[in-house]
This record gives sequence, structure tokens and C-alpha cells, in this order.
Amino acid sequence: MSLTLVIGDKTYSSWSLRAALALELTGAPYDEVLVHLNRADTHARILEHSPTGKVPVLKTEEGPVWDSMAIGEYLAERFPEAHLWPRGQYARAVARAVCAEMHSGFVALRTHMPMDLKRARPLEPLPAEVQADIERVCRLWAECRAEFGQDGPFLFGHASLADAFFAPVATRLRSYQVVLPAAAAAYVETIYQWSAFQGWYQAALEESVA
Amino acid sequence: MSLTLVIGDKTYSSWSLRAALALELTGAPYDEVLVHLNRADTHARILEHSPTGKVPVLKTEEGPVWDSMAIGEYLAERFPEAHLWPRGQYARAVARAVCAEMHSGFVALRTHMPMDLKRARPLEPLPAEVQADIERVCRLWAECRAEFGQDGPFLFGHASLADAFFAPVATRLRSYQVVLPAAAAAYVETIYQWSAFQGWYQAALEESVA
Repeated sequence: MSLTLVIGDKTYSSWSLRAALALELTGAPYDEVLVHLNRADTHARILEHSPTGKVPVLKTEEGPVWDSMAIGEYLAERFPEAHLWPRGQYARAVARAVCAEMHSGFVALRTHMPMDLKRARPLEPLPAEVQADIERVCRLWAECRAEFGQDGPFLFGHASLADAFFAPVATRLRSYQVVLPAAAAAYVETIYQWSAFQGWYQAALEESVA
Repeated sequence: MSLTLVIGDKTYSSWSLRAALALELTGAPYDEVLVHLNRADTHARILEHSPTGKVPVLKTEEGPVWDSMAIGEYLAERFPEAHLWPRGQYARAVARAVCAEMHSGFVALRTHMPMDLKRARPLEPLPAEVQADIERVCRLWAECRAEFGQDGPFLFGHASLADAFFAPVATRLRSYQVVLPAAAAAYVETIYQWSAFQGWYQAALEESVA
């Protein structure tokens, strides 16, 4: 077994964080290759590993798997005993729906509040479309927690790919000091207490970036 | 068993087409609810069915499943005998990667060439970023066909969710009369000959839209 995850800067690369958390959920050993973003040779270095020229990419024995969503599904299939998705069929469907919604949406939030784990400063003024995205995120978290979160503090109780997908959003809400409803604030704290996230976060704080 | 797919206009709603093709792949019976887009009551009518206010949404016995990607995965799980994904683990991973790439990317292509099944007219001039997206699509199709397409004319041989995801792209390339390499043109023709697509396409041609 040999898996290598190619990622961008831990401070900035939110899609890399998702894939890294998915890998942490499996408990499997893996190697990491970090390509610094926004440098003259970034694109060439990523292309050595990834057919799309983007991070993250997971290098497997059979070839590269790109895109954080496909990486998550690949790992869920390869490590079924780790239950990367919630156990009930409908819970899984909702978990995939909220991940997919994140994967293709929340454009205002992602554009105006890029992940920056070293930041501790509000965005002022907060654009209305960002506020709308934040409200949708908080509602979505509350609904997942209420319907599926009985067995633990994560979106579907136990930590799952849904938390891997929303962890970068949680960091934005903290880094940009967004005032949140209590339930959403508690979920952000859950992410920051999550050991899988902690490892990445500490590395990001110590990382020197352009 | 009771499944209802809520879709937008067949002429325009490319994400609805993806979900409908996924359902056709299962062979299971389902009901269809069509909400016309771009009308005064569109948003309110969709909200009756979908928590995000968007189509498509699949109504199941347990609740709604939204987003075409999550709908595809839900159906693949629920109808395992229909093999909605390719059979090999790595082929599945690549199929998911190309679907995910479509799901979150190809923004220029999607923005400048919205699906319009009644159209037969080029886009002039063709923006450079659209051309780049088209080239990536053609490369990606060629790679899937070469590596995984031995057993049939679809991206992974047999028809799969990858074809459901790229069918709306194939229609754009035809509707906007894009000049294509022979292999890509052949794949577009495969989509137009696909019975699952034909049903939708004929309905679109007869549909009266705003």
C-alpha cells in the first residue's frame, strides 16, 4: 500500500485540507508532497503529479486521483471499515449533498474570504452575498446536527467526510471573526478541537509562505 | 419504492439532465415534476421540493436528495446491480474525478455556452477561455476512452454516470457547432444516439419555453 497526497500551502489550500482530513479519517499511513502556491514553478511542479495542474491529487498504485470529492469517495471505498460517510443510507445521501453543495457553490464566501489560517481579522464591510452564504452554511450545519448529529459533536455525529469538507469553512468563520449563532460557533470549536485538523493547523501556523 | 425527480426545463436545465440520465441508468421507474425556470413563481415552486431552491432534487421515501452528484451517488448505492459507476476501483476513481472536475469547473464553457437544446448556431467569437475548456474536455474524453473505453463507445465503455455528467457538454458542442477532433465528434454522436438521452432530447424539442 502506498498513497501520496500532493497538497498546496497548509495556510491557504482549502481543497488540500479537505483531502488531508479525508486521509486522516482512514487512519492509513501516507506520504505528503507540498507544492508552494503562487510561485514561478508552481504550475510545472503540480503538473508532475496531477493531470489537471491543481492540488490536491492523491497518487495511488494505479495512478492519480484528483479532486477532493473524488479522493474522498475513493478513500471511502478503499477503507470501508473507517466509515468515512455516515452509516445510514439517507444520512449518507444528505452528507454527499452538503459536500456537493460546498464543492460547486458558496462562491461569494470562497472568493471574498479565501482560507488563511494565520489571519485573525474581520472582513469589513461584509458583502451581502457573503452574509447570505454564511447564513446558508449555519442553517445547513444546524439541520445536519439536529437530524443526524445525536452520537457526537460532528455534523453527522462521528467525524465524516462532511466535516472534512466544511472544516475550511469553519476556519474562515474564525479567521475572519464572523459573529455566529451559538450552535455554529460550537461546531467551529469542534473542528478546532479535532485532532485530525489540529495537526494541519499547527503546521500551517509554523509554515513560511509567500 | 417511490422516486420523484424535480427538474427544470428540458431545453435548458443541464444539471437536471444529468440527474435524469442517472435515473435512466438505474432502469427504475420514477415520477417527474417539471418546474419552468425564469418565471415569477419558479423559486417558490422549487422550494416546495428542494431545500436549496435549486433543481434537480430527487424526492425519496426518506427525504430529498439534492445536487446531481449526490443524486448520482445515491442511485449508484441504491441500485448496485445497475453499475452506475465503472466496475474497476481505479476506473471508478477516475470517473468520479472527471465528474467532480465538471461539477466544480469548466466555468467559462458553462457561462458562455449555456445548454440550449434547440440551438444550432455558433458562438462568435469564441472566447479563449472557452476554447481552453473545450480542449480540456476533448483531452479528458480521449484519455478516458483510451484507458477505459474498450468495451463500448462511452467514456468508460458502458454508459455510466460519467456520460450522464458530460452529456450536457456534448450537447453544447453540437448546439454551438464547435469544430471538434474526430474522436470527440464521435463521442458527441454516441450521446445523441443514447436512448436515455434521446427521450429527454425529443421532449426538449417539443417543449415550449419562455
